[in-house]
Amino acid sequence: MFQAIVSADTLGAALDSVSVLVDECKINLTEEGLAIRAVDPANVGMVDLHLGVDAFESYETDDGQIGVNLSRLEEFVGMATSGQLVRLELDEETRKLRIQIEGLEGTLALIDPESIRKEPEIPELELPATIVVEGTDIDRAVKAADMVSDHIALGVDPDAESFYVEAEGDTDDVHLTLDREELIDLVEGDARSLFSLDYLKDMNKAINKDAEVKLELGQEFPVKLHFDIAEAQGQVTYMLAPRIQSD
Amino acid sequence: MFQAIVSADTLGAALDSVSVLVDECKINLTEEGLAIRAVDPANVGMVDLHLGVDAFESYETDDGQIGVNLSRLEEFVGMATSGQLVRLELDEETRKLRIQIEGLEGTLALIDPESIRKEPEIPELELPATIVVEGTDIDRAVKAADMVSDHIALGVDPDAESFYVEAEGDTDDVHLTLDREELIDLVEGDARSLFSLDYLKDMNKAINKDAEVKLELGQEFPVKLHFDIAEAQGQVTYMLAPRIQSD
Amino acid sequence: MFQAIVSADTLGAALDSVSVLVDECKINLTEEGLAIRAVDPANVGMVDLHLGVDAFESYETDDGQIGVNLSRLEEFVGMATSGQLVRLELDEETRKLRIQIEGLEGTLALIDPESIRKEPEIPELELPATIVVEGTDIDRAVKAADMVSDHIALGVDPDAESFYVEAEGDTDDVHLTLDREELIDLVEGDARSLFSLDYLKDMNKAINKDAEVKLELGQEFPVKLHFDIAEAQGQVTYMLAPRIQSD
Repeated sequence: MFQAIVSADTLGAALDSVSVLVDECKINLTEEGLAIRAVDPANVGMVDLHLGVDAFESYETDDGQIGVNLSRLEEFVGMATSGQLVRLELDEETRKLRIQIEGLEGTLALIDPESIRKEPEIPELELPATIVVEGTDIDRAVKAADMVSDHIALGVDPDAESFYVEAEGDTDDVHLTLDREELIDLVEGDARSLFSLDYLKDMNKAINKDAEVKLELGQEFPVKLHFDIAEAQGQVTYMLAPRIQSD
Repeated sequence: MFQAIVSADTLGAALDSVSVLVDECKINLTEEGLAIRAVDPANVGMVDLHLGVDAFESYETDDGQIGVNLSRLEEFVGMATSGQLVRLELDEETRKLRIQIEGLEGTLALIDPESIRKEPEIPELELPATIVVEGTDIDRAVKAADMVSDHIALGVDPDAESFYVEAEGDTDDVHLTLDREELIDLVEGDARSLFSLDYLKDMNKAINKDAEVKLELGQEFPVKLHFDIAEAQGQVTYMLAPRIQSD
Repeated sequence: MFQAIVSADTLGAALDSVSVLVDECKINLTEEGLAIRAVDPANVGMVDLHLGVDAFESYETDDGQIGVNLSRLEEFVGMATSGQLVRLELDEETRKLRIQIEGLEGTLALIDPESIRKEPEIPELELPATIVVEGTDIDRAVKAADMVSDHIALGVDPDAESFYVEAEGDTDDVHLTLDREELIDLVEGDARSLFSLDYLKDMNKAINKDAEVKLELGQEFPVKLHFDIAEAQGQVTYMLAPRIQSD
């Protein structure tokens, strides 16, 4: 059993954070709220989303798991105008999700969760450096790197007490440095890793420009990005595997 | 003989209501104003447009008919900025239309009306139900239906005193209900018909979000949509033939 | 040696005025400022751009010439938000251009100037007619002509004391007349020439709608367009060769 009422903006932001990585996912419905864990087909990028009960106007479930096509569900939710509420109800018998937005009612066929890629275990990692930046700086770094390369290096310079982003192309390169005073927070540590820019570009799409993003970074280790969505009612963690440094 | 001065906004809206269905049309010029009747090549959608003499700053004709390529004429009219006037004058000798917008003068070759598809007779129909809704509701219904299907059913539920829109896809469906109090007006009657969504999408493009749209509906019968354009100076009627219900 | 600080808006506008014609160019760095002369591969359109020392926040050079890929450089400059400053510095050793925008630093490989098309000599011409118009009128003329033709005639009618623009298509034509009182200035003379519309469309992209554009025009002669960019801190001259009148 599952039925819930939630603002279209909140639900939309939550789904967007997952759909940048995967087309289909399992949604876990528990007493604590809604949770999604997914990994892209290449096993490079992972997402862990939590939308707590407080994010909902009303929320009832006796636990369960449903499989959804994200773009279909996003399309339905996109029928709401900003501020409108979405009512979700699981029809156990037909295994369909009923979606109501004012006078509009839709029925969305669910996907057998068994047919969806297994949920990843997102590993606990002891990463030596922590950087907290604004979403707008992630955006700027990604756009700058994209001018010259397909890869992006993230690192911490303990001497300069700064976080840096580097991208090297065949002939051109870019380098972005954010000093301690330009960061919201910095815990220094030995950290520099190279990542595929395509994944970080996708993840960047789900990060609000004014969000606080906490990065956990290590030496040739995955990066974790933590940020809130929907006015802190939802929490997203992305994990991105490093690329082997070619030089 | 034909010469007239009209605001670019008014003329543009009038032409747009026809060009969503056909590329070329005959324009009838009479003492009462300008009138266009056209039917799409598949004989499924018809339009009947009237732009009365009051819609013009000045208007003179001794009756006649001209054939135009709508997108060419719309492009010329589109050279005007909002609020500017367009001066039209028929050159009988060359069979060209002279168009003046401030210092700009264009000459548009007309099309032999004989070469354009015959104007349809738009039948008088005694349709049992009448629904008056805002354009924004048509827009919402069309967008919702478009998520799941190529067809859209419009109907009236006499018991619930409501107007409804339904679309059924292979796996998903949507249903929009507007109760009497959500409608501008409702005359109940036995009415439900299925239509091709593509046509309704095209017609929807010409309907202002805040326009009052009067629908006349029957049981597996064509639907008629009536609405005003250009601050009630023009009247449009669309008629759309029903699709045979497959189930 | 070259290092300079300039607003991103000013530098962007200067580069845009050249990139509408060519992909690569030589930038001449002198005590007076930055200058670019370029001609398109077909030798039809030329540009002469000057950005004086006053356009810069700071400017130092001991003269020199660098070759750049314009779209790459524009992309780097485009990383700045409006109002931000761009710091340019030539690294003589690596022949790269260092670009700094706040914490962001990029390195752009330069192109060997020898490999770039020779800079044109822009001829001194005694053209009989001079017309000064607003950029918005150039824009309107170009858009109107584009509806009917690939060519555009510019001319002066000494009897009517007016500047005119004409375009003739296979079936349709347009004619735009600007009288003396609609022009900022007019020096009459025997002048009418036909031009390729594609070039004028490209040049039009770099002309601000509210810029004053001075046209020098003759009888089947090239046209010269002079206008300022970046709040009069930069001067652009375009020269466009005439097409032979086919009739």
